[in-house]
This record gives sequence, C-alpha cells and structure tokens, in this order.
Amino acid sequence: MASPSRTFAGLAVGSTFRSTGEIAVTAERIKSFAAEFDPQPIHLGAPDVLLDPSSEVIASGWHTAALSMRLVLDSDLPLLGRSLGVGVEAMSWRAPVRPGDRLRLEGTITEFRPSRSHAGRDVLKFRIAVYNQAGELTLEATHVALLARRGASPIVG
Amino acid sequence: MASPSRTFAGLAVGSTFRSTGEIAVTAERIKSFAAEFDPQPIHLGAPDVLLDPSSEVIASGWHTAALSMRLVLDSDLPLLGRSLGVGVEAMSWRAPVRPGDRLRLEGTITEFRPSRSHAGRDVLKFRIAVYNQAGELTLEATHVALLARRGASPIVG
Repeated sequence: MASPSRTFAGLAVGSTFRSTGEIAVTAERIKSFAAEFDPQPIHLGAPDVLLDPSSEVIASGWHTAALSMRLVLDSDLPLLGRSLGVGVEAMSWRAPVRPGDRLRLEGTITEFRPSRSHAGRDVLKFRIAVYNQAGELTLEATHVALLARRGASPIVG
Repeated sequence: MASPSRTFAGLAVGSTFRSTGEIAVTAERIKSFAAEFDPQPIHLGAPDVLLDPSSEVIASGWHTAALSMRLVLDSDLPLLGRSLGVGVEAMSWRAPVRPGDRLRLEGTITEFRPSRSHAGRDVLKFRIAVYNQAGELTLEATHVALLARRGASPIVG
C-alpha cells in the first residue's frame, strides 16, 4: 500500500495538536444559535424546570460541535483547507457549555492512510477533546476526513 | 427492568418519524455559517480548485448537522423539549448540500429503555436520514438522548 501523501507534512498517527487560542461563548450567541437550529427551552434561556430548575441557559450540543470544528481549523493541525469531512465516528457531549465559558481543543491523529475507495486521497482520523476554562471536558469526538493530494481529481464533482 | 416512562407516548423501537416541512438552504447562510464555524474555501464561496474546480460553494457538514437537529425538532417525534442530547454514535456526510437545496428528514427509533446510569431517565436512540429535494441522502446519523421523566431530578445540575 502506498504511503499517504507527502503534501501534509507533520501528519502521522500519534501526532497531537491543539487550538492556538480559545473561543468565548456568550449567552446571546447560545440563544441565537438555538433559535435557528435547536429551539429547546434549555438552550433558549427558558430552561424547563423538569430538566433543570436552577440552571441558566446551556449551549446546544450542535453549537459546541460547530465550535469544535472552528477550534480544529484554528489549531496547529495543517489541514490547509484541503480536507473534506466524511463523518464522525462518535461524539459525546460530556459537560454543558454555559455563557462565559472559554473553549479550547486538544487532538490526536489516530489514523492516516491512503483511501481505499477514493484514488488520490488519504483518510485522516483524529480524536478531539474540547475543554472549558476550568479544564472540564465538554465534548469529545473522532472525526474522519478525506485529504486531497495535489493534482488529484475533485473530491466533490 | 422497568419500562420506559409513559410520559412519551408513541415512542417505541421501530417507530418512524419525519420532518413536517423542509428547510431551504441559501448561499448566504452557507457562507455566514462557514465564516463563523468552518472557514474553509469550499464553504466560503471560494472553492479550492484542488478539491473542486467546477463546483459552487457547499455547506459545512456542521451546518447540515445543525439543520438536522432542527428537522428532528420540527418532526412528529414528540421530544417535547424534555430531551438532552448525549451524543452521536456515528454521523456520515453522504452528499454535499448546495445553495437552493431543500432538506427533509426521516427517522427511526432504534432503542428506548431506562437509563442504567441516570435514575429517572430513559435512553432514546434514533437513526436519522436527511434528504435533499432530489431524494438524495445528504446526512445520516444515530443520535443518543436522555429523556427526563416528570418529577425526576434535573439532568443538568
């Protein structure tokens, strides 16, 4: 089997990466994201007393998931805009994200090999963990992406 | 083992549900979502010629994923705002979502049982499939949620 593309120097199984900064989460954005994508009381600022009589609003898990993608791109993982997400093998929301939280990401490459089904592509899998400012794990997931090599035909045609 | 809560009438393994309407996806929202969460050329309206020399912009997979949550809430699955997402067992982006696409969802309940780790909760798993207006599968996933029963203590404390 061929080696993965040399285009992506530094990508190897076991390599780790981390976000270069943090993303601060505001109550306003939690609520507006929820209004568009996940309009449940607990994300809109009107928590259901059955679920949580005392809490303030918490972010939609899909908001946290989208922010995790931004943290991947803002990390030292050299995706270079040439990756295409194929899917997620598993994703868990481990602790709520609340207004004022600052999120950061750590990741590890778990697989990097030529694609069996897409000529000229490599498959990259990486595990991510998103932490809040207290070091609490809020989300973990394993992402699967296809990487195009230079000169290969389009992934999306 | 106790039966799942009677609160959620109509939830049973094998039950199917579908979105009550469609969501139309615009180029403007594809680009603005990407600018915030997934700023890669192919989602921003400047596709990388390496990935795709001919295509127009395609939606971030995280945009499609967030829309799938909205389609679940806009379906006849009676979550009633009392569910809390725990995670996703697997999610695959099967075909690109492009400007002008209209998305709809079909789902099937695959598991519904009392939680082993959270007293007073039920675990609900459901498989979803998001289709575009041409009937093409764009996203599939299995979601895992906790449902609170009436009178149970908060899921989020």
